[in-house]
Amino acid sequence: MLKVSIYGASGYTGQELLRLLIRHSRVDITSITSRKYKGIPLSDVFPVFKELTAIKFMDASPEEVIPLCDVVFLALPHGEAMAVAPKFLNAGKKVIDLGADFRFRDVDTYERWYGGHASPEFIKKAVYGLPELHRDSLKGADFVANPGCYPTGAILGLAPLIQHECIDNSSIVVDSKSGVSGAGRELQIGSLFCEVNEGFKAYKVGVHRHTPEIEQELSFLAKKDIKISFTPHLVPVNRGILSTMYGKSRKNLTTPEIVHIYEDFYRDEPFVRIQESGVFPNISSVRGSNYCDIGITVDDRTGRVVVVSVIDNLVKGAAGQAIQNMNLMCGLPENLGLDVVSIFP
Amino acid sequence: MLKVSIYGASGYTGQELLRLLIRHSRVDITSITSRKYKGIPLSDVFPVFKELTAIKFMDASPEEVIPLCDVVFLALPHGEAMAVAPKFLNAGKKVIDLGADFRFRDVDTYERWYGGHASPEFIKKAVYGLPELHRDSLKGADFVANPGCYPTGAILGLAPLIQHECIDNSSIVVDSKSGVSGAGRELQIGSLFCEVNEGFKAYKVGVHRHTPEIEQELSFLAKKDIKISFTPHLVPVNRGILSTMYGKSRKNLTTPEIVHIYEDFYRDEPFVRIQESGVFPNISSVRGSNYCDIGITVDDRTGRVVVVSVIDNLVKGAAGQAIQNMNLMCGLPENLGLDVVSIFP
Amino acid sequence: MLKVSIYGASGYTGQELLRLLIRHSRVDITSITSRKYKGIPLSDVFPVFKELTAIKFMDASPEEVIPLCDVVFLALPHGEAMAVAPKFLNAGKKVIDLGADFRFRDVDTYERWYGGHASPEFIKKAVYGLPELHRDSLKGADFVANPGCYPTGAILGLAPLIQHECIDNSSIVVDSKSGVSGAGRELQIGSLFCEVNEGFKAYKVGVHRHTPEIEQELSFLAKKDIKISFTPHLVPVNRGILSTMYGKSRKNLTTPEIVHIYEDFYRDEPFVRIQESGVFPNISSVRGSNYCDIGITVDDRTGRVVVVSVIDNLVKGAAGQAIQNMNLMCGLPENLGLDVVSIFP
Amino acid sequence: MLKVSIYGASGYTGQELLRLLIRHSRVDITSITSRKYKGIPLSDVFPVFKELTAIKFMDASPEEVIPLCDVVFLALPHGEAMAVAPKFLNAGKKVIDLGADFRFRDVDTYERWYGGHASPEFIKKAVYGLPELHRDSLKGADFVANPGCYPTGAILGLAPLIQHECIDNSSIVVDSKSGVSGAGRELQIGSLFCEVNEGFKAYKVGVHRHTPEIEQELSFLAKKDIKISFTPHLVPVNRGILSTMYGKSRKNLTTPEIVHIYEDFYRDEPFVRIQESGVFPNISSVRGSNYCDIGITVDDRTGRVVVVSVIDNLVKGAAGQAIQNMNLMCGLPENLGLDVVSIFP
Repeated sequence: MLKVSIYGASGYTGQELLRLLIRHSRVDITSITSRKYKGIPLSDVFPVFKELTAIKFMDASPEEVIPLCDVVFLALPHGEAMAVAPKFLNAGKKVIDLGADFRFRDVDTYERWYGGHASPEFIKKAVYGLPELHRDSLKGADFVANPGCYPTGAILGLAPLIQHECIDNSSIVVDSKSGVSGAGRELQIGSLFCEVNEGFKAYKVGVHRHTPEIEQELSFLAKKDIKISFTPHLVPVNRGILSTMYGKSRKNLTTPEIVHIYEDFYRDEPFVRIQESGVFPNISSVRGSNYCDIGITVDDRTGRVVVVSVIDNLVKGAAGQAIQNMNLMCGLPENLGLDVVSIFP
Repeated sequence: MLKVSIYGASGYTGQELLRLLIRHSRVDITSITSRKYKGIPLSDVFPVFKELTAIKFMDASPEEVIPLCDVVFLALPHGEAMAVAPKFLNAGKKVIDLGADFRFRDVDTYERWYGGHASPEFIKKAVYGLPELHRDSLKGADFVANPGCYPTGAILGLAPLIQHECIDNSSIVVDSKSGVSGAGRELQIGSLFCEVNEGFKAYKVGVHRHTPEIEQELSFLAKKDIKISFTPHLVPVNRGILSTMYGKSRKNLTTPEIVHIYEDFYRDEPFVRIQESGVFPNISSVRGSNYCDIGITVDDRTGRVVVVSVIDNLVKGAAGQAIQNMNLMCGLPENLGLDVVSIFP
Repeated sequence: MLKVSIYGASGYTGQELLRLLIRHSRVDITSITSRKYKGIPLSDVFPVFKELTAIKFMDASPEEVIPLCDVVFLALPHGEAMAVAPKFLNAGKKVIDLGADFRFRDVDTYERWYGGHASPEFIKKAVYGLPELHRDSLKGADFVANPGCYPTGAILGLAPLIQHECIDNSSIVVDSKSGVSGAGRELQIGSLFCEVNEGFKAYKVGVHRHTPEIEQELSFLAKKDIKISFTPHLVPVNRGILSTMYGKSRKNLTTPEIVHIYEDFYRDEPFVRIQESGVFPNISSVRGSNYCDIGITVDDRTGRVVVVSVIDNLVKGAAGQAIQNMNLMCGLPENLGLDVVSIFP
Repeated sequence: MLKVSIYGASGYTGQELLRLLIRHSRVDITSITSRKYKGIPLSDVFPVFKELTAIKFMDASPEEVIPLCDVVFLALPHGEAMAVAPKFLNAGKKVIDLGADFRFRDVDTYERWYGGHASPEFIKKAVYGLPELHRDSLKGADFVANPGCYPTGAILGLAPLIQHECIDNSSIVVDSKSGVSGAGRELQIGSLFCEVNEGFKAYKVGVHRHTPEIEQELSFLAKKDIKISFTPHLVPVNRGILSTMYGKSRKNLTTPEIVHIYEDFYRDEPFVRIQESGVFPNISSVRGSNYCDIGITVDDRTGRVVVVSVIDNLVKGAAGQAIQNMNLMCGLPENLGLDVVSIFP
């Protein structure tokens, strides 16, 4: 059994890791930390765990957690993992960071969008944890930077088009819509029920920090710099991200031809499902599961390819993908603990 | 492996059975029927099943389904199972009926609330499928009438009080609130999103057909006739039933004493969780799982005991309990396939 | 034109007062106060007011507001109005307090449920602002304690039964369900979208502070002490309260007879609508309006009368009723500014 | 007083017309028609109207309605108005058609997207009812084709950019999100609460019939043909459309410069509100009102202008705009009956 710790487990991502890991047949959850809930049983904070575990939150330093784990998930606010991850790594632990601190190969990009970085020397050690693009590097890796929620859906949605040079790379628009759990469990007026319910808005138009992350991976695939327009929106649902992506067609391909390219690109992927021509996915089809569903069409009138991808932001967009990465890092079957059927309605 | 058929699988209950059974380690789903979706793959009707199964809906008579199964779940509109169940039973199959046709020991009660019964001779053969009250009869049974959703939550919430004669049996009020999936997938104005969303209403006040079902089981426990006031309401959520129950205290017990009675009554139950004094459950704590969570308080000012129970109407209130019954009928561990953690948020 | 100030205008009640008063033909809104939003235009905090008014929040003492107004609405947290109201009253202003500080005729009751009272001598000066029960006292009054949201729906729902001695007063159960705006705009985990959405829960079972307020008014009608069981619940909608009320029938009246009693009791009321026998109201039928809709039935099987009332908690449950009171206090037509059609869907 | 009839009044658009017209100081509603609800009081179908009107639905031919009205609103399924409108027009009545039948200046475009047209000779008589673009033609007009909901938000959002040639007209992407009332009150699986709630999807990607309507008006402004990519999505809310629009900048204008262009373009418009730089609107700010709120930014990194517009699809997107048109056609103040403050929360 793997001994697993979750460092910073009191948010929605932490509890989603727990929901999945508690049923993972090769994992023992040995510690969970939280400053706020120190000493309090997990099931008091999240009653779904009542009678499933007696574990309590600890307020523990990395040094205290190190002896308790083989693998640690960091589910910390952005900027906090950069001080913590190196300690676990230096102690020989496998680390999966669910924040942004180590997602960028280029420190400058990180610092332009996020501010100063305290451990730039560890950036190169981290593998970007999108198995569909980097599986070989993830196998056996010690340090993984788990992708952001928006980037996961957007990159998976665009990768085949970029790889096969199907679209004009300067024409890409990514219009994304996220459920509210993406904003976390922090107290802010904008996350109150009455502010969100029956509402819909765009936010951080053109300036969201997930933009450079999407660009990094698309540029990696294209082997040249790509810039995109990215607009996130807030949907009054708990879970789910749907991204609608547009690009000018370069090759006059038909919808079935492009669908075929996608089927091919993702042929052996356990968690990507390509829809037939003319079918577009709903976030409700992936709720609670690790799938990314993708629909594609070519709009002949305008010469644009339109791609729609959906994920559960807490699963494939966070905790599920982190476990998929853990499985790869530790030599376990990639889908262990992740064979959950989506819950509907 | 058990060969399992679902007869009438195109509603929300049918698909919830499929969500759970598809991950049940001792079950093969051999056929699913639907007149409406004949020949159509399950995953076209419910996209959550995409790439998980290639099974298609059949429009098949009981005679055609009999050779395909050891166990059959009937998820039919009320009144249709009474013609179908006897055929499966006579062929030696185990039958779990999720409708109301065989829930009443007394044909007269059935006919007063539902209308004429076509197979009254089979009523006595059916065991009422609430394991917490009838486990011994369910073990190895051939024919189970799965309880209604409201009755499950209400009976589990009141049983210890009735059993221990803690309340005046003529004083019971059951005020229940259900999510919308309880209304099924039929087309009706009242189930449209815009009619339900941002709304809340009572319906069938004093005349809902689940009333006599609750009364039957409470009377069984009390060994005398009990009548209750029952008011169902519609909550704009997908899943969940919360029942708030009131009864005049007979014994001057304190809240901790009554909580203790509940803990005792449900001590070894795998799917009932009693809350500490002063804690009341939320339907979101049982979403997707087979749990019934119960909170209790004594209101000293008025001398009333107030009990709040929650279930997921599609799981403990339908498909999950049906599988729990199947496990008991077939000698499998009772919680097989049901060790699902609730999904939150 | 009446000069009107809103003291404490940054919550949902404050903005609802503004929504209605801005279209009131006899009112000039001369000042709105908020410590938090001092100097900020109202339309920056609540964008619905963009281009409708240039008014800004002031952080002003009562002394500074006094010269600006004829009438002041106090929309303050409980406990704050007791220091503020006397100053306005002593300066000869008309005061409508939307909090609980002056709702109780009996200081002891207030102090038992809320804690110490700083201005007990002003309690007797306040009229309880439920026009359907106290219209004559409200006409021309200087000081009104606007009822709580739950009490408004519960009292209106039960008053005719109490008045006509139709039920056993010791048998009353009030099971209420409120939308989330009732919790206000304060930051708390329990008000976050993801905590509330797709959930439903009871809270403060048997101990909610609106209990004695309901009891006070029912006892006033009965001319003897009444105690009730009261359970509030949280519904995932923005607005609306539905109360389901139960009492043992004393007189063997039929449903049509009781409906007739209600129609009679509320014959000339502009804001109470009695449903026909067998029809029960939905909160969505009163959204945004000042109506209280009431449905009634007699459950012959159990001898209980069941009443369902609905209001919009922000309108008839707060701001709308406050304006109705202002109209009465100032000799204006009672429904001025309140002839709003409910918004559906 | 204007005598007004609503022909086809049983859907959400019909009832929204009634909500607004019932408070319009210059209108008498003389008849409302519905085949389905013939003889039934309006308030039985839509309880919000209880005690506000005794009007009943008639099942009446145009010939029967003609003597009852000066103005008729047609709120019929697409394709039905083309047989009805000419009768009212020939009888000298003013007609506002809320469907698509007469929105296109070019019959061929209509027939390509909708099918055959029965009254093509009347197409030229209709004015496209977007006051912000066609006010002069609407004043005193007899026949108005009220715009579609998506086109209203999209055209208002893009018009200043097109007019001032700020963007490359071949680069336009319109990504729209609509509340569920846009789908009407018809019974369909996809409109059921459980199918929509907690879901989000794109539909009719690239093939929605509102596309040519948006293109017609943008082309009119540009004086040359414009084609756009248009993707509608379904948001789980009752009301509201938010459109996010993208175009390649042609002029290197800054955000404040473009905001200034918008302020100028809409300077005297009573129902368009331009947000300051960096502020983007939420559909909840226009709920129930006739406003269109617009936010704009320039994304310097990609050289794209991004515009976000919001409307209430039932008000500015249907009934409110129809009344605005009626006011213009009949020489009344343009905002009569439309000075409603948005309702929040």
